[in-house]
Amino acid sequence: MQSLPGFRDFVPKECAARNYIFHRWREVARRYGFVEWDGPVLEPTDLYTKKSGPEIVTQLFNFTDKGEREVAMRPELTPTLARVVAAHEREFKKPLKWFSIPQCFRYEKQQRGRLREHYQFNADIIGESALEADVELIALCVDLLRAFGFTAEDVVVRISDREFWIDFLRAQNVPEEKWEEVLQAIDKSEREPREKTAARLGSLAEPTFKILDGTGTSEKLEQVVAALRNRGLTEFVKIDLGIVRGLAYYSGVVFEAFDRGGKLRALAGGGRYDNLIQQLSDGAVSLPAIGFAMGDVVLGELIAEQPAAKAKMEEAIAAQQNLDIYVVIAKEERRADALAQIQALRDRGYRVDFPLTPAKVGKQFQTAEQLGARIAILFGDEWPQVKLKDLRTGEQSLLPHEGLSARFAALLSSPA
Amino acid sequence: MQSLPGFRDFVPKECAARNYIFHRWREVARRYGFVEWDGPVLEPTDLYTKKSGPEIVTQLFNFTDKGEREVAMRPELTPTLARVVAAHEREFKKPLKWFSIPQCFRYEKQQRGRLREHYQFNADIIGESALEADVELIALCVDLLRAFGFTAEDVVVRISDREFWIDFLRAQNVPEEKWEEVLQAIDKSEREPREKTAARLGSLAEPTFKILDGTGTSEKLEQVVAALRNRGLTEFVKIDLGIVRGLAYYSGVVFEAFDRGGKLRALAGGGRYDNLIQQLSDGAVSLPAIGFAMGDVVLGELIAEQPAAKAKMEEAIAAQQNLDIYVVIAKEERRADALAQIQALRDRGYRVDFPLTPAKVGKQFQTAEQLGARIAILFGDEWPQVKLKDLRTGEQSLLPHEGLSARFAALLSSPA
Repeated sequence: MQSLPGFRDFVPKECAARNYIFHRWREVARRYGFVEWDGPVLEPTDLYTKKSGPEIVTQLFNFTDKGEREVAMRPELTPTLARVVAAHEREFKKPLKWFSIPQCFRYEKQQRGRLREHYQFNADIIGESALEADVELIALCVDLLRAFGFTAEDVVVRISDREFWIDFLRAQNVPEEKWEEVLQAIDKSEREPREKTAARLGSLAEPTFKILDGTGTSEKLEQVVAALRNRGLTEFVKIDLGIVRGLAYYSGVVFEAFDRGGKLRALAGGGRYDNLIQQLSDGAVSLPAIGFAMGDVVLGELIAEQPAAKAKMEEAIAAQQNLDIYVVIAKEERRADALAQIQALRDRGYRVDFPLTPAKVGKQFQTAEQLGARIAILFGDEWPQVKLKDLRTGEQSLLPHEGLSARFAALLSSPA
Repeated sequence: MQSLPGFRDFVPKECAARNYIFHRWREVARRYGFVEWDGPVLEPTDLYTKKSGPEIVTQLFNFTDKGEREVAMRPELTPTLARVVAAHEREFKKPLKWFSIPQCFRYEKQQRGRLREHYQFNADIIGESALEADVELIALCVDLLRAFGFTAEDVVVRISDREFWIDFLRAQNVPEEKWEEVLQAIDKSEREPREKTAARLGSLAEPTFKILDGTGTSEKLEQVVAALRNRGLTEFVKIDLGIVRGLAYYSGVVFEAFDRGGKLRALAGGGRYDNLIQQLSDGAVSLPAIGFAMGDVVLGELIAEQPAAKAKMEEAIAAQQNLDIYVVIAKEERRADALAQIQALRDRGYRVDFPLTPAKVGKQFQTAEQLGARIAILFGDEWPQVKLKDLRTGEQSLLPHEGLSARFAALLSSPA
């Protein structure tokens, strides 16, 4: 019996790495005043075709449910966001600063950094068109990456402006129905040979390459960088008009985060989508918005490759998984007494384990070490005292068993 | 555009309640030395029919994927557990103490406490047949409920023994192929009129009702209760042979947790399943096991109904969601200075927000209160000093802006 291709099992070590990523995402988003929300894993298929066109269906896990509804496992969260915001619009003060960590699903060819499911941190600011919202969101993206231990030598956020390209297309008299095709060709240009892009672009190739090869900028992008300077984050960003993002609905600033080495897929990407909520809500609600997403798969690869980030993760996982106390039951007559103390210690929030069945003392200490316990408490001949052993220093001491749990405040400065 | 029937949107208030439940589940499981794992949301349909028979398919969100695989959204986690444990058996020291919080899916008629998706805390001890494992797991179930603020007046765990009933069926000469049918009739007896159960049971009705109406027990169950007495948890449990659990694979102690009022569905349920891993792994791995699950929907209903539990939840949510600091920008000339301080404060882990666009000072203070901020810092005429206002006490003071973030250790005793 095997799991499906492209789907991950998370045994405890892998689950801890996943949870570490989630924990950092949540922590930093909350520092920025974002609040968490979530939507259903399963949605009507229409919700996605409405945003992305019927061709999206080829990439979906979609089916007809037992009530004859056309449904799909979510490939992304933005359509759900538009639905939920449109339904609850009046309940919330704008701007909304919302984040979420959905698991998303796509039926795609598996490649490095791309599975058929992944977790994707999403952050959106809704109801604010001012450029300061774009800056706040880009700063969040940078600080998320910093929280994993990455420096400006490891990662870069490349910032561009979809309006710059729209102005360009207008100036070149490209008819509006051709825009998406051209923008997608520019989006792909970095990842394919120039001749291929040139063939896609036709007469637009020359002026486009001129921009891509130059150091083009715009007043708006300069403002973004100036505002990031106030926060001390400019070394993490770079104006780069080569970023256009393939999707049709972006309407202003767009950005993508990459490893500096350029070996991996994008770590994150997003941009302004001022018209999408109106379009998805059939005009019921019109709100400017900007958002981005960061996936767990490529991020996990970069953490594994960067020694400082990896060490930081391992330290955090150990701190969270290790036991505080392992109770060694040296005499079975003391099991009942030991369990009373175990209960009291757990009630105070300590992580405590013990042997479920009789075992040799040496083996119990071995288990204590394997589980990363900081302290062993031995219930045996010393009763009514118990023996304490600090498993890091090897120091031992005897203590009366009464009020054992209260005494631990000094030994374990904070419960987990 | 609507969500699908039986699927929930989690707007921030509801997402916070969900996360509060997850947080408590995780915290208590870790105190007991359980480690988290997870499996895929989508699995081969066979994995479920193998455990539950072909009739389970009528309750599944199942379909044929684009690679012609028969797949289903997980209705429960145990078959995945068996698959993962069988695959990784040699990597881990027994017993395994594993927990998980999967979202599970069933295409069912919606009723109170039953949607088409729910989150379900799962805990299992694998590789240990001793009764002490059963006790540890029942104690965990009790302590999970205690962590939400429930007392023995609110909840009860009813403990039974499938072996008692197997012995009864043997003594009554019931052929083995009839056992499941009889056990299911007993399982349902509490929720339907006696005549209906009597009709299902036939000649077994009389001796069965005698047991159900009596105060039957077994040596094994008495041992469980005695062991729980060491932990001071007996007031939360009750021996009750009326609990049999409908599923065929339970092989020993079984238990279910309920609200004392008896108004709601079961809060949790589980038991020993010593033969299931062997069966699901086609004999590759044989490990005794005991586990239980607790869903978020019924639990959430009980929290909402019990004032102390509800207050505890609301306090925890406020502590986690409220801002530490709202920065009031009274003069736009100070925005750049304010942002440098905001960055420094966030870097230290404080939750900080500010107005993205110019706003009147009074309105900014209003927003600060709405966001639950503890402190407002005003950047305005006082520059190079800033004005601090404690939003709980109303106290105000002036501080130099230099090193503002470092000064906060005294004001906000701990970063969030």
